[in-house]
Amino acid sequence: MVFLALASAAVVVAAYAYAQASTPVSQGQPISGNYSGPLRPQIHFSPPTEFMNDPNGMFLDADGVYHLYYQYNPTDIVAGNQHWGHATSNDLFHWTNQQIAIYPPTNDSQLFSGSAVVDVNNTSGFFPNQTNGVVAIYTLNTATAQVQEIAYSSDGGYTFQRYAGNPVIDVNSTQFRDPKVIWHEETGKWAMVVAHSQDFVIEIYTSPDLKEWSHGSNFSHYGLLGSQYECPNMLALPVVRADGTSETMYLLAISINPGAPLGGSITQYFPGTFNGTHFTPADGATRLTDFGKDNYAGQFFSGVPASQKQIAIGWASNWQYAQTVPTGPLEGWRSAMTLPKISSLRDAGAAGIELVQELPDLSPIYESQLVQNRSTDNLTLAIDYSSVSSGTIYLDINVTNINMAAVSGTLNFTITSSSTNESLSAGYLLSSGDFWIDRGDVEGFKNLFFTDRFFTVYAVQNGAWRLQAVVDRSLLEVAIDSGRQAATTSFYPQVGGKMDGLLVAADGLGQAEVSVGVWGLQSGWAAEASQDGLVYGNVTSSS
Amino acid sequence: MVFLALASAAVVVAAYAYAQASTPVSQGQPISGNYSGPLRPQIHFSPPTEFMNDPNGMFLDADGVYHLYYQYNPTDIVAGNQHWGHATSNDLFHWTNQQIAIYPPTNDSQLFSGSAVVDVNNTSGFFPNQTNGVVAIYTLNTATAQVQEIAYSSDGGYTFQRYAGNPVIDVNSTQFRDPKVIWHEETGKWAMVVAHSQDFVIEIYTSPDLKEWSHGSNFSHYGLLGSQYECPNMLALPVVRADGTSETMYLLAISINPGAPLGGSITQYFPGTFNGTHFTPADGATRLTDFGKDNYAGQFFSGVPASQKQIAIGWASNWQYAQTVPTGPLEGWRSAMTLPKISSLRDAGAAGIELVQELPDLSPIYESQLVQNRSTDNLTLAIDYSSVSSGTIYLDINVTNINMAAVSGTLNFTITSSSTNESLSAGYLLSSGDFWIDRGDVEGFKNLFFTDRFFTVYAVQNGAWRLQAVVDRSLLEVAIDSGRQAATTSFYPQVGGKMDGLLVAADGLGQAEVSVGVWGLQSGWAAEASQDGLVYGNVTSSS
Repeated sequence: MVFLALASAAVVVAAYAYAQASTPVSQGQPISGNYSGPLRPQIHFSPPTEFMNDPNGMFLDADGVYHLYYQYNPTDIVAGNQHWGHATSNDLFHWTNQQIAIYPPTNDSQLFSGSAVVDVNNTSGFFPNQTNGVVAIYTLNTATAQVQEIAYSSDGGYTFQRYAGNPVIDVNSTQFRDPKVIWHEETGKWAMVVAHSQDFVIEIYTSPDLKEWSHGSNFSHYGLLGSQYECPNMLALPVVRADGTSETMYLLAISINPGAPLGGSITQYFPGTFNGTHFTPADGATRLTDFGKDNYAGQFFSGVPASQKQIAIGWASNWQYAQTVPTGPLEGWRSAMTLPKISSLRDAGAAGIELVQELPDLSPIYESQLVQNRSTDNLTLAIDYSSVSSGTIYLDINVTNINMAAVSGTLNFTITSSSTNESLSAGYLLSSGDFWIDRGDVEGFKNLFFTDRFFTVYAVQNGAWRLQAVVDRSLLEVAIDSGRQAATTSFYPQVGGKMDGLLVAADGLGQAEVSVGVWGLQSGWAAEASQDGLVYGNVTSSS
Repeated sequence: MVFLALASAAVVVAAYAYAQASTPVSQGQPISGNYSGPLRPQIHFSPPTEFMNDPNGMFLDADGVYHLYYQYNPTDIVAGNQHWGHATSNDLFHWTNQQIAIYPPTNDSQLFSGSAVVDVNNTSGFFPNQTNGVVAIYTLNTATAQVQEIAYSSDGGYTFQRYAGNPVIDVNSTQFRDPKVIWHEETGKWAMVVAHSQDFVIEIYTSPDLKEWSHGSNFSHYGLLGSQYECPNMLALPVVRADGTSETMYLLAISINPGAPLGGSITQYFPGTFNGTHFTPADGATRLTDFGKDNYAGQFFSGVPASQKQIAIGWASNWQYAQTVPTGPLEGWRSAMTLPKISSLRDAGAAGIELVQELPDLSPIYESQLVQNRSTDNLTLAIDYSSVSSGTIYLDINVTNINMAAVSGTLNFTITSSSTNESLSAGYLLSSGDFWIDRGDVEGFKNLFFTDRFFTVYAVQNGAWRLQAVVDRSLLEVAIDSGRQAATTSFYPQVGGKMDGLLVAADGLGQAEVSVGVWGLQSGWAAEASQDGLVYGNVTSSS
C-alpha cells in the first residue's frame, strides 16, 4: 500500500490525503459492477467500481478457493478511503466479487495493505473448533501513526472481526506498513516482513500466535531504494535445476515507489535463505520482477505448498498515472491485477538465481483457435479477431532449431484496431537478444508519465525461444521463454478504438522454424453477468 | 569498452565484429576535425571525426594538464577498429586534440578500455630519470582472448611504447576487460579493478610495479547485472558531512550493458571501504549515476588528491543507439563525452551515502549574461539566445524561502527552435518531487531505442531547490540541487532546427522566491579552429 507523502504527482497527494470516508460504505452485499466496457480486462481481476490498488491477504483455502483481497476505495476513482475489497476464484480466471471484507474502524482511518493466513492449528486461539479460521494482518493508517493490526474470520475469510487487543505492533511511526506473514515450519512460528518505508528497512518479526510479535532482524538498504520501501513479501519456492530436480529456497521481494528507474513504482527481489528470524540474500544483485512499468506490490498466495510453484498477483498499474487513467471517467473503475504468475526460481548459471514467472495454463478458457501456423525462415500472419466476443486473445510463438553459431532474424507482433490507426507492438532481435514493447501508438491516454517503450535483453538459449502474450482489452502480458522475463503493460485505446487485429511477422530466421498459435479466450466476467449486464457477485439472500 | 557479443542491435554486432583495421591509420599528427556543425557540442569533448566511445586513461599531470584518452575508431563512424585517441585540456572546456596515443599492435587486434597512472616513483622501472612517466593499462582484444597489457610513455602521455613483457594478466578468457588502476598509499601498492564481464565479477589485483599482478579479491554479483559488467572504477573521494567536515571513502562504479532498466547502458555505484585488496560496500543498495540514458563507462581522473572533489567524465551515449545517431551521416562524427562532473559523496541520512555530481564552475567561459531575474510565486521568461555564437547556454535556477509545511508549485524550462516546432523540455513538481526530462519533441532522430522521457524524484530540502542546466547543441546536462541528482541527455534537432529559444516558467510557488540566471557560453572549439574552419589540434612541425 503506497502512502503518498512522496507521491508521484501533485494531484495524487491531494486526492489521497483528503479523500477520506465521509459517507459510510454500505455493508453486507458485494458492490455490483459493469464489466462490459471496452477497456475492461476480461480475464484479469478488476474491481466492480471505483479505485483499486495493491493485492492484499491472498490465500488458498482448503477447498481450493483462491481469496484475493485488495486495497479498495469504494467511494472514489482515486485512492483515499481504503478498505479491503474481496473476491474469490476457483481457477484464477473467473472471479466472484464478495462483500467488502474489512472496513476502516473510523472515518479518519484507512486500512492499508497486508496479508492473511489460515490458522489451521488455532495458534491464535480465535478458532477453538475449526481448522479454517483466517487471520488478516494489515496496517491501520491514521494521521498520526501506522500500526499493525489483526482481524479474524470464522467464516473462511468472508467477514472479519478486529482483534480487541489491537494494535499488535506499534513502534510510534507514521511510515511502517504492509505486513506479510508466513508460517515457518522449522521454528514453529509465524514470521512477518514489514517495511519501515522511509528508513529502507524490512523488519522481520516472529510470533507464536499472531498476536505477540518479537523482533527477529532487520534487512536494510538492499537493491534500488527509490524514495520508499513498500509491500515486502517473503516465501519459500522451488528452485528448478537444469536436470529437473528442485529444492526450495526463499525469496524476498521489495517494492519501491516512487523512484523506480523507469519512473514511479517497481518491484525487486532477492533470492536467499531464511532461518526463522534472519533472511540472508544469496548475492548482492538487484533483480526486477518486470521489465515494464505496470506490476507493483505483488503478493503470493498463502497456502500453496513450498514444493510447488507459487502463485503471485501484482497490481497492474503505476502510481505515476494510476489515478489519471481513462477507465475512471469512461467506465467508473481504475486498475486491474496482473494475471497470476506461476512462480519458481531457476539456476541461471553465472547470472545467479532468477525468478521465473510463467503465464498460467490458458487452455481451460480457450474459446476458439484462430491460427495454428508453422513456417521456416520467415512468416507473415494477419489475423482478424473481431469475432472473439471477449476481445481477449492468447498468442504462443515458438522458434526452434535456431543455429546457435549464427543466430539471426527478427520476430514481431502488432495488435491493431480496424476502426482507428492505433497499434500496440512488440518485437525481438534474435541476434542481440533485444526485446521491446511499444504502447506509444495507442492513443486513448496521453500523460507525461505514461512512457511508451520498454526493453529487456534475453539471449536465445539452446536453439529455441518462446514468446507468449495475452492481450486483454487494456492489458498486455508478455512472457519470454516461459516466464524467464516477464512484463505487464497497460494501454488504453481511444473511444471507438477497439483492438481487433493481430499481425505476426518473422523474418531472417534462416533454418529456424517458427510456430504460431493464437486462441480467442472466454471472458471470465461475461459468465458472471446478470441479464441487465451487471456483475452482482456473491449476493446473499439474507441481506 | 563494450564487447558486443550481446550487443544492443543486430547491426552493431556486425559492425563491431568485422570492421577491423584494414588501412593503417597514419601516425604522428592529430586527426583534424570540423567542430562547427550544428549538432557539435561546443563545450563538451567530441572526437575530430569518426566514432568515439568510452573515456580511457584519464589523468591530471603535474603541470595541471588533464589528459583524456578515449576509445576511438578513426576509420569508421561505428565502433570497430579501436585505438586510444587523446586530447588535453587545462580547464576541461578547451580541448586540444593530440595524435592517437596507442595503436592496436596488429590488424586483427583492438585496444579496448583501460586507465593510466603517473608513475612518479618509477615503481615500474620504465622511467629511471623522471617523475612524469605515464603507464597505460588497457585490454588487448583479439578473436581468441582479452588480456591486460601495459604501455609506457616517457613524454608525459603523448606517445607510448608497448611493454615487451605483455600481457601482464592473461586468464584465458574472452570476456575480461577494462582495467582501472589506482595507487593505494597504505599498502604501498597499485590496485586494479577489472571486469570478468559475463561472470559478473570485478576482480581486484595488486602490484608493486604495474607489471606483476596478484589476485586480491573478487567483488561479484552486486547491483543490477544486465548482461555484462564493464568499466569498473574505484577511487577514494571526500564524503562531505552536513557540518562541512569531510573524510574520505571509497566508491566502486560498475557499468552494465546491455540490460539497463531503461534499456542499453547504465552505470551504478557502491560507496564503501577498501583495504588494498578487498572492497567492502557500505550497504547492499544499488545507486545509479544518472537518471537519463546517456552516461556510460564514466571514469575519474587519476592524480587529483583524494581529499579534493574528484572529476569524472562519462561517455554521453548509449549502445542502444550510439552507432545510428545522425551526427555520423550529417557531420562525420559520433559521440561526445559528458561535461566533467565534480564528484564527492554525501551522507544522505536514511538513504545512505550518495554520489554528488556538480557541474563544473562555468563562469570562466561566460560569454554574456542573457537574463538575471528574480520573482515571487510565479515567473515567465522567454529568451531568444540566437545571438549566442556558440549556441550553448547555461541556466541556473534557485528557488528559496519554500514553505516546507506546504510545498507547492511547478517549475519548467523548454528549449525551442525558431525555425521548427521542435522543443526539449524539463520540469519539476515541487510537492511530489517529480523531475522529468522530455526529448520526444526534438525531431532529428527517431529510433525505437531512443526513448524520450526520463524521471527522478527528489524532495525539496531545507526550503530551497536549485536546478542547473547546460544546453550544448545536441547535449543537455541537468544537475538538481548542485548535483545530488544528475542526467546527461543527448538530443538531435532536425536539419535546420537549431535550438535558440528558452522558456522558463514557474507557477504556484506561493511565498517562495525564484531567481533565474542565463548565460551564453564561449565555444571551447571555435577558439581552436584555424582560418579554414578546421581544428587541427597539436600539430608538430617535425612531422
